Amino acid sequence: FSSKLPKVKTTIFTIMSALAQKNNAINLSQGFPNFECDELLKKMCNDAMVSGYNQYAPMAGVMELRSEISKKYESLYNSSYHPESEITVTVGATQAIFTVISAFIREQDEVILFKPAYDCYEPAIEVNGGKVIPIQLNRPNYSVNWEEVQRKISNRTKMIIINTPHNPSGAIFSESDMLKLQELTNGTDIILLSDEVYEHIVFDNALHESVCKYAGLKSRSFISASFGKTFHVTGWKVGYCCGPKELMKEFRKVHQFNVFSVHHPTQIALANYLKEPCHYLELNGFYQEKRDLFLDLIKGSKFEFSPSKGTYFQNLSFENITNEGDIDFAKRLVEDYKIASIPLSEFNENNRDDKMLRFCFAKKSETLRRAADILNLI
Amino acid sequence: FSSKLPKVKTTIFTIMSALAQKNNAINLSQGFPNFECDELLKKMCNDAMVSGYNQYAPMAGVMELRSEISKKYESLYNSSYHPESEITVTVGATQAIFTVISAFIREQDEVILFKPAYDCYEPAIEVNGGKVIPIQLNRPNYSVNWEEVQRKISNRTKMIIINTPHNPSGAIFSESDMLKLQELTNGTDIILLSDEVYEHIVFDNALHESVCKYAGLKSRSFISASFGKTFHVTGWKVGYCCGPKELMKEFRKVHQFNVFSVHHPTQIALANYLKEPCHYLELNGFYQEKRDLFLDLIKGSKFEFSPSKGTYFQNLSFENITNEGDIDFAKRLVEDYKIASIPLSEFNENNRDDKMLRFCFAKKSETLRRAADILNLI
Ligand SMILES: CSCCC(=O)C(=O)O
Ligand SMILES: CSCCC(=O)C(=O)O
Repeated sequence: FSSKLPKVKTTIFTIMSALAQKNNAINLSQGFPNFECDELLKKMCNDAMVSGYNQYAPMAGVMELRSEISKKYESLYNSSYHPESEITVTVGATQAIFTVISAFIREQDEVILFKPAYDCYEPAIEVNGGKVIPIQLNRPNYSVNWEEVQRKISNRTKMIIINTPHNPSGAIFSESDMLKLQELTNGTDIILLSDEVYEHIVFDNALHESVCKYAGLKSRSFISASFGKTFHVTGWKVGYCCGPKELMKEFRKVHQFNVFSVHHPTQIALANYLKEPCHYLELNGFYQEKRDLFLDLIKGSKFEFSPSKGTYFQNLSFENITNEGDIDFAKRLVEDYKIASIPLSEFNENNRDDKMLRFCFAKKSETLRRAADILNLI
Repeated sequence: FSSKLPKVKTTIFTIMSALAQKNNAINLSQGFPNFECDELLKKMCNDAMVSGYNQYAPMAGVMELRSEISKKYESLYNSSYHPESEITVTVGATQAIFTVISAFIREQDEVILFKPAYDCYEPAIEVNGGKVIPIQLNRPNYSVNWEEVQRKISNRTKMIIINTPHNPSGAIFSESDMLKLQELTNGTDIILLSDEVYEHIVFDNALHESVCKYAGLKSRSFISASFGKTFHVTGWKVGYCCGPKELMKEFRKVHQFNVFSVHHPTQIALANYLKEPCHYLELNGFYQEKRDLFLDLIKGSKFEFSPSKGTYFQNLSFENITNEGDIDFAKRLVEDYKIASIPLSEFNENNRDDKMLRFCFAKKSETLRRAADILNLI
């Protein structure tokens, strides 16, 4: 057989986490917290199992959970999604993304993707026969060149994927970015996929710009979102997808035959947890403290950086340290210094090497201190 | 936009379960148990959460779980799958099936599918641009016409999907079926997808024929399997996929970007549960009793049947009762008689109506009794 995805290898997250484990290194590579989620959430999940929610959940998700999600969009963004027809619970945001792309992208369709990009979009497009149209984000601030977007939109453009806060750069879209995107897609059939998994992790009083705040964007957009990242349970693999009814109908045609439904007790637990006074907005402050601690601890190191604006990742430039390629350097850091990170070239077009490593600061203070001690030695 | 899946509607399982709920009917439609799983399994899942297994599981699954799966294939089928490279834990068998198809099927590829067929295969093939080549199973015993298979194999045949024990018919493949399939695919590049989710539910001392028992089949086959069906936790959405290393490599390229990984505490729980003295083989007897009870209770009814040979489904013919279409009749049974089933035409080529309904007997004796009381009145 000939591979449908000849270029695809094992994801860098799996590789670096495995390498970290093998070398007994501090793992700031793959993005996940090393502290515990709220005990109440675990208790609620156990209660749901004990109460017998162990058979198939409804295909689109537990209705009470969908209602709570809907309420969040009302209260935070003054935007409404109908729980019955516009919200679907998914196996993490990744499954939402893969399903959106599978439901719409065919042979010859073009998808505009900003680079660097998280690694799951491109293979999903290619396995469906679509063509990635990459657009480089401007360095050093990772802003969008909207004129280039305008030039690259063609009558084959089926979808544009955006991601704000942006992984791996930590950049965020501004209101003017959103208005620009609205202007460019107005009057077209282009579908937007807005990956907003870090929506509750933005810093320095910035506002998260969700596509759902802009009527002209919302009507053509899917949002992918994650409970794992928001409630410190990445291993529970639960997220969701929102989108207008007509688009969501197509999404569910694929969803129902991809996974059918999502872990039932977890959904019940989240529905109940979301009824408690909600701490979404505390998350910004929680992670800002971690970012600030981490940056303060390494301010004397040879690494250079500008502070992350969102997500739980910080990029460090090692241009002052070595001429090595970022993959080689990242590997050496794991093996010799016992600290694991993600080389950014993995996310870049043609693996362009910006001499940057991505570090996850969703870690206990003690871990961040140990990590900083190492980074200061390099 | 034009739909990639114009023919696809909401799956019949969602429709009938929702109708059952609305009408407060006994739900023998969608296949799931209405009794509880082992309390030990729930406890083990809670223990895993409490112990902190709440971040990403490894992409291919928890290694201890994969080892236990491997041991099962050794001990039951004398067949070996390498845990590292030949087994991947999935979000139920459905995700395994969708992922196998997505990893291999392209525009123009042909996939041979026996009808009636469970409803998830066909949309997965079509969303990837493939073409379904349907082959009718012989009535009334749902056996395969292997000469027709031979005729329909072409140089475009990329995959053949088999499912034994077979949903919805309850038929099982014999050794001679497997040898025939081996003979026909020998020397070709055809990939087999063997959906064996009911492998532990076969009756009357029949043996489950797994593709892994036949070297000539195993080398070209994926197996999809389900813990949900085996351990009475369909809502936990956990299953797995086995296949030879080279094929599994392609599978994981898609898996990692479709869902990335599976609910972590559940995997830890299953790994520990499988280390206990294992009760796989008791499941046959357990469900045979349920089948026998159900059939004994309805033997005086106007429905006709031949006993299911495997799965937890029993088909009943209503030819003696009404000329109605099976969908109309099934709907009337829910609304007027408060009992829900699945009309088999949903699984047939061109929705051919065999005047049969499928009933799930994975239910408490008391439920089966109440169901039989109703069926005897019709
Ligand atoms: C799915 S593993 C990767 C986790 C993540 O979001 C990241 O590290 O960027
Ligand atoms: C995924 S819901 C359907 C469950 C099932 O396997 C069946 O009823 O056939």
